[in-house]
Amino acid sequence: MPHKKIGEKTMKKIGIADTTFARYDMAKDAIDEIKKSSTGIKILRITVPGIKDLPVACKKLVEEEGCDICMAFGMPGPDPKDKVTAQVASQGIVTAQLLSNTHILEVFVHEDEAKGKELIELCKKRAREHAQNLIRMLFRPEQMTKRAGTGQREGFEDAGPLK
Amino acid sequence: MPHKKIGEKTMKKIGIADTTFARYDMAKDAIDEIKKSSTGIKILRITVPGIKDLPVACKKLVEEEGCDICMAFGMPGPDPKDKVTAQVASQGIVTAQLLSNTHILEVFVHEDEAKGKELIELCKKRAREHAQNLIRMLFRPEQMTKRAGTGQREGFEDAGPLK
Amino acid sequence: MPHKKIGEKTMKKIGIADTTFARYDMAKDAIDEIKKSSTGIKILRITVPGIKDLPVACKKLVEEEGCDICMAFGMPGPDPKDKVTAQVASQGIVTAQLLSNTHILEVFVHEDEAKGKELIELCKKRAREHAQNLIRMLFRPEQMTKRAGTGQREGFEDAGPLK
Amino acid sequence: MPHKKIGEKTMKKIGIADTTFARYDMAKDAIDEIKKSSTGIKILRITVPGIKDLPVACKKLVEEEGCDICMAFGMPGPDPKDKVTAQVASQGIVTAQLLSNTHILEVFVHEDEAKGKELIELCKKRAREHAQNLIRMLFRPEQMTKRAGTGQREGFEDAGPLK
Amino acid sequence: MPHKKIGEKTMKKIGIADTTFARYDMAKDAIDEIKKSSTGIKILRITVPGIKDLPVACKKLVEEEGCDICMAFGMPGPDPKDKVTAQVASQGIVTAQLLSNTHILEVFVHEDEAKGKELIELCKKRAREHAQNLIRMLFRPEQMTKRAGTGQREGFEDAGPLK
Repeated sequence: MPHKKIGEKTMKKIGIADTTFARYDMAKDAIDEIKKSSTGIKILRITVPGIKDLPVACKKLVEEEGCDICMAFGMPGPDPKDKVTAQVASQGIVTAQLLSNTHILEVFVHEDEAKGKELIELCKKRAREHAQNLIRMLFRPEQMTKRAGTGQREGFEDAGPLK
Repeated sequence: MPHKKIGEKTMKKIGIADTTFARYDMAKDAIDEIKKSSTGIKILRITVPGIKDLPVACKKLVEEEGCDICMAFGMPGPDPKDKVTAQVASQGIVTAQLLSNTHILEVFVHEDEAKGKELIELCKKRAREHAQNLIRMLFRPEQMTKRAGTGQREGFEDAGPLK
Repeated sequence: MPHKKIGEKTMKKIGIADTTFARYDMAKDAIDEIKKSSTGIKILRITVPGIKDLPVACKKLVEEEGCDICMAFGMPGPDPKDKVTAQVASQGIVTAQLLSNTHILEVFVHEDEAKGKELIELCKKRAREHAQNLIRMLFRPEQMTKRAGTGQREGFEDAGPLK
Repeated sequence: MPHKKIGEKTMKKIGIADTTFARYDMAKDAIDEIKKSSTGIKILRITVPGIKDLPVACKKLVEEEGCDICMAFGMPGPDPKDKVTAQVASQGIVTAQLLSNTHILEVFVHEDEAKGKELIELCKKRAREHAQNLIRMLFRPEQMTKRAGTGQREGFEDAGPLK
Repeated sequence: MPHKKIGEKTMKKIGIADTTFARYDMAKDAIDEIKKSSTGIKILRITVPGIKDLPVACKKLVEEEGCDICMAFGMPGPDPKDKVTAQVASQGIVTAQLLSNTHILEVFVHEDEAKGKELIELCKKRAREHAQNLIRMLFRPEQMTKRAGTGQREGFEDAGPLK
């Protein structure tokens, strides 16, 4: 595994994997959000054809490029076949995490979650809100625990805690 | 793997992973229940965005933090997409256990198992009853075997043995 | 892995894992059947909350306790959610076997396979007939091959060979 | 892993795993077909209760007995529960191959693929045609590639290439 | 792992796995496309019976033959049983990638995606367009990222970016 230390300080590396299949470039928004939220971070990005190519892309970013955490962006289609593809990809992303002991945030927007402009807005917001999750997980994990059980919904209005 | 012995005695470490997606903070109840039931225990907690992030969170608690057993709390939503997510997360939690040879109790409450106040009560009771399971598994495994085949239902009235 | 030899002889160890969720204690019948069928066997038993906890329980019986073969008893409920749980548990039991190169006989009775007294009878017979399978697999594998393709149905009347 | 060389020559070992659940002894036909097609082959056979026991049976034939390739015979029943069992077993057979870097040909006949005498004929033909696949894969892989994309259907009339 | 260097230069090896079950020889088109697009490449091809045999075939091409990347071609049938087979095969291909840290492009055409001549055209185009993806991934990964989020659809008209 490559060296991560620069002098006394640790430079965190974030891996970004996305697809040419997706119809919106969510990675761009996430990268912008990450750069606004933090300094001293290196971002590595790789683009693959479809969501089933994401698990190994992320595992290589961790094991060959030394990334500390990854985001995997995808946009599954609306057909039953696409839903199976999404399940296979998700299971692969979970396995990739287990084999590398590293978090990979799956940021999928299903094409049938919304329509037109609303779908674009959903992509932007989900990408940015998960980028904020990633920053919290890397640097301020106690802020994640403050939000435990509060019904967060990345990209949509939060469901909020049960009442 | 970190050292777990303190002098002659073994301090048990319990890992707790939960999510910001859930709409109730089950971990809080479980931690309270554990502290009431036992002493000499250290609890480590990590909060992740959603249930698919739980498997690696638990595996890291075991392999990097030395936890002897974990609990994974989550609240899958009611949609078909959420049901697939729950299956993927569950399979990942099983795999995490197999790769670390460590028990991880999955404590999921599906949002459609009950409504309103009843759902909150279910969360509380399931969290606490699984915390009691964990204490038995760690310290009094023979009490688990006494209950074998008795139709326990954490959070609901027990189904009881067949008659 | 612990020593299994006693003097010149090999004492076989059988692992039994079962649940508090199940509504009948199948392990008791299986243990009785094993003891009637064979001597010089050591049985180790562990009880966990639900069927998703069985895979790692069995893998630990093999890898930490030196068991030569295991049985995993469970009683999945009748709801769609329970059917998914059963699939996840089964896949985990298969993976546990692959990672430990050891057979684990899955002995599940679904709660909707029969009703009332008939369900109890099914539990008893399936547990005992799979205990007999285990004894054959351990000591008389050629008797398994004699039965190949004969339509055995543990707990029910055999389907028999095609005609 | 056991030695496979006899003098200067390599004796190939074929592993056969089948079940007592199946209602026809397909392994018998496959073994006959293999013996007619090739010499200098050693066949090892193991019989297990059901199809979920096949993955580890094959992995043990490879890793503990030195088999170069395996066949896994099974006959899933017609119920929804049986279909899930078949999926779990198939996924396990794929994983067994990946963990041992060895081909395992899954030869399943679903009980609802045909009826009566027709089902028996299907079993015989599928077993024999997959035995021929195995011989080609072991000794004449270029003959497999000649048949690439030709719509072979083991046990049924071939679908043939698209027109 | 075999040596890949020839003098100072690295010769890339591409693995191709396909099936006799498929009704069109997609590998032939892909190989033609690869040869037109690049020089200094070695192609290794293996043909197996069905899509569930593809994962280990590709893993062996990587781990035993030194391939840098693979393509897995298959044509799942139209029945529910075939859809399950496709899911199992896909999950296996994802796992094969994770265990070998190597990309395997799954190029499946479902028999019910189109009819007659249209289905043949779909096979040809998908095979060639994925061959182009492979060349980009190997030699010009920055061109993949240029296409990120643009709604590419191999074999069909591209969906294009959301508007």
